[in-house]
Amino acid sequence: MIHSDGFRSLDRQECLRLLAEAPVGRVVYTRQALPAVLPVNFTLDTDSSVALCTSAASDLVRAVDGVVVAFEADDFDAGNRSGWSVVVTGRAAVVTDPAEHERLLRTGPRSWMPMRDGVFVRIEAEMVKGRELTGLPGPG
Amino acid sequence: MIHSDGFRSLDRQECLRLLAEAPVGRVVYTRQALPAVLPVNFTLDTDSSVALCTSAASDLVRAVDGVVVAFEADDFDAGNRSGWSVVVTGRAAVVTDPAEHERLLRTGPRSWMPMRDGVFVRIEAEMVKGRELTGLPGPG
Repeated sequence: MIHSDGFRSLDRQECLRLLAEAPVGRVVYTRQALPAVLPVNFTLDTDSSVALCTSAASDLVRAVDGVVVAFEADDFDAGNRSGWSVVVTGRAAVVTDPAEHERLLRTGPRSWMPMRDGVFVRIEAEMVKGRELTGLPGPG
Repeated sequence: MIHSDGFRSLDRQECLRLLAEAPVGRVVYTRQALPAVLPVNFTLDTDSSVALCTSAASDLVRAVDGVVVAFEADDFDAGNRSGWSVVVTGRAAVVTDPAEHERLLRTGPRSWMPMRDGVFVRIEAEMVKGRELTGLPGPG
């Protein structure tokens, strides 16, 4: 669908395909009643949830465990004003199941920062929306 | 300052210098009680506020006018795990002063999408925080 304001909505499959190739996304949440955002590397898990690895003692874990958050990734080319963005909205939770933690140690994301108390956080892909800007707009 | 988890805090001037060169950032806000995020092009105004241009009838304007939001920009290199991110937190407001609107028409951001009802939104740089990841972590 092309909107009058020049972008095209992406369907869930297109969104997940783009997310799977993005190295970095941003967790969007609330911290002390203020909007907060933190870029992280991530992987897309087999059930399409977003998996990330962070310190068990981090502000992020305290703020998002058990809470609905948004997760955004995008890629834009400023030169020709094209690109895409995808937003996943769903419940975030620290992975506590030992077998699941073990599996993510093998197949999940690796933190870019050294840490001794790494935990995995999973964001369910309950709502997945995306849009694409297809390039320099024409007149009207 | 180098943190134990491998990133360096950026001071306000470093943050503003990086923001001034970034073509795209992300408005982080709350929409219908859920965390929301929208990538936009922007300019950094003379008072260090973030200026963006959007449709007067947009969901974004309805959600953020008069409200504290966050605005994030970043640039990461997944290959060597380096990069930076900056978050501005402050009150967003539609620019209603005609002289100010006129000035931003000349010096402010231009929307990447065609629109007939463009308005400028300004986000005050009340709190500016940034961090830098300086590359592949060493052991321990």
